[in-house]
Amino acid sequence: MPPIPRDRVEEAYRLLQRVQRRDLVAPELSDTFTDLYTVCLDALDAYDRVALTSRIAGKQYFAFQDPATGTISRAVSTDLYAPEVDSWREFVDALRGNDYAAAGLDPDSVTRTLYSLAISFCAVIDLTRTRDQKTPGTFFEYFIGHLFASRLGASPTTRLPVLNLDMDTTLPTDYVFDLGAGRPKFHLPIKTSTRERVIQVWAHQRVLDGVYGTGRFLGTPVILAETKTDRRRLEVVEICLPDQWRIYQMHIAQLTRIYYLDVPSTYERLNDVFPPLHVRPFGEFFFEVDELTA
Amino acid sequence: MPPIPRDRVEEAYRLLQRVQRRDLVAPELSDTFTDLYTVCLDALDAYDRVALTSRIAGKQYFAFQDPATGTISRAVSTDLYAPEVDSWREFVDALRGNDYAAAGLDPDSVTRTLYSLAISFCAVIDLTRTRDQKTPGTFFEYFIGHLFASRLGASPTTRLPVLNLDMDTTLPTDYVFDLGAGRPKFHLPIKTSTRERVIQVWAHQRVLDGVYGTGRFLGTPVILAETKTDRRRLEVVEICLPDQWRIYQMHIAQLTRIYYLDVPSTYERLNDVFPPLHVRPFGEFFFEVDELTA
Repeated sequence: MPPIPRDRVEEAYRLLQRVQRRDLVAPELSDTFTDLYTVCLDALDAYDRVALTSRIAGKQYFAFQDPATGTISRAVSTDLYAPEVDSWREFVDALRGNDYAAAGLDPDSVTRTLYSLAISFCAVIDLTRTRDQKTPGTFFEYFIGHLFASRLGASPTTRLPVLNLDMDTTLPTDYVFDLGAGRPKFHLPIKTSTRERVIQVWAHQRVLDGVYGTGRFLGTPVILAETKTDRRRLEVVEICLPDQWRIYQMHIAQLTRIYYLDVPSTYERLNDVFPPLHVRPFGEFFFEVDELTA
Repeated sequence: MPPIPRDRVEEAYRLLQRVQRRDLVAPELSDTFTDLYTVCLDALDAYDRVALTSRIAGKQYFAFQDPATGTISRAVSTDLYAPEVDSWREFVDALRGNDYAAAGLDPDSVTRTLYSLAISFCAVIDLTRTRDQKTPGTFFEYFIGHLFASRLGASPTTRLPVLNLDMDTTLPTDYVFDLGAGRPKFHLPIKTSTRERVIQVWAHQRVLDGVYGTGRFLGTPVILAETKTDRRRLEVVEICLPDQWRIYQMHIAQLTRIYYLDVPSTYERLNDVFPPLHVRPFGEFFFEVDELTA
């Protein structure tokens, strides 16, 4: 008897955990994501789709639902979800050659491809494990970490030395990427959603600015979405704190970009206020990163 | 048939929730804590005590254990735990008269009294509700909020207006106490433990310093303990990040005091390094607060 899709997802995820440990920049890690994506889509075939009532202007969502138990997954954007493994394979080829235009890719199509892969895995975990918030978060760190590493051609570290007069210690960090002397480094917090914990991102940026000097680290958090699903009412809302974000950006530290796979409309408007906060679909990273480091 | 102790604790806690909502500074709120403490000690009589293997030099801990299921509570400090409702009553009298020396109280005896009340309630919840982290945290906020409010003679707020050129919004905060014009205000984060989330405390202090001016808010977080209990091995450790605390204090903002009910020894030593971080048993607050605001 062939293994049921749920077991194949668990197996593909365990393989991913092992492969990512070796090196986040390794090209073969992309293929491990291809395999995981394929089995996730197979697994999701067994579930129904149920429309959610969206309380977010201009955005539509659905959820996967277990026909036996009625359990539903997190909200999935109807506009962004395009579950095609071939699109992911095309993107991987473009990433390896660092040429996106030749493959006919643009920031929006890249965002849709990456969103579809990430949300598929998260939805499977929502449906097959009870109250497991940690696995989607860890998976998303591997995924974004690998994409950043591949685009920058550098492996991240999560610990930096501090040599400050009589202090000689190390500072644990989110992923940081060192592009070498004379170039900016990247500070990459990765979250599936932020809520009130987001202040940590600015605080960590402030510590890096303080310890190593302002401008040495570009803060570019990547976040999946800010949706919150009411599983009883089948409703979806976005939890956003735009006024607080502006205060953090003015008073704690300056982030260079805040990337989302599913950009909340409330935060998108922060691009248009003065001083602006640069909130972008993650697909843009692949096209604009050379300018950011120039 | 009289209600079983567990139900009496739930009932006393619901009453506390109602009374605290009216006014955290109300003297009768202390009596509500007296009633809750009394029923918690009754409830704990039904449990065994089991010694824990302490991995913390110079500190001993035990846990309450359900004789039927084997479930254990969080770690309780053998040195600090003195479950006497009369000591709490004496402290309440001293608090109402704002005279601690007349009652023969000193910072250490006050710390023991407050620790014993707080940990008793937390232990009952650990034993009677599954995976409920939130109730002990909320209870601890009421408790410390009430003590701070009573000592300062002022009610806290959790929202401050921001008027900054073209910004006109409000900032949600932890408890803040306004002692009036020309006097410092208090910024009071309250946590049962901090771990890696502690950077939020410094970040919120930085926002207050930035928006309202450095020196206007004294940051004085109050934390219950940093113990972590391995419930299978019956072992207790303390999770401390002293190097990171020093970096936060130097690079994010300056906290005036960090109060603990059970001071971790690793953090106690931060009083002796230069520049010092003032980590104190919470009992000292009642004796030193007039100097802090002078």
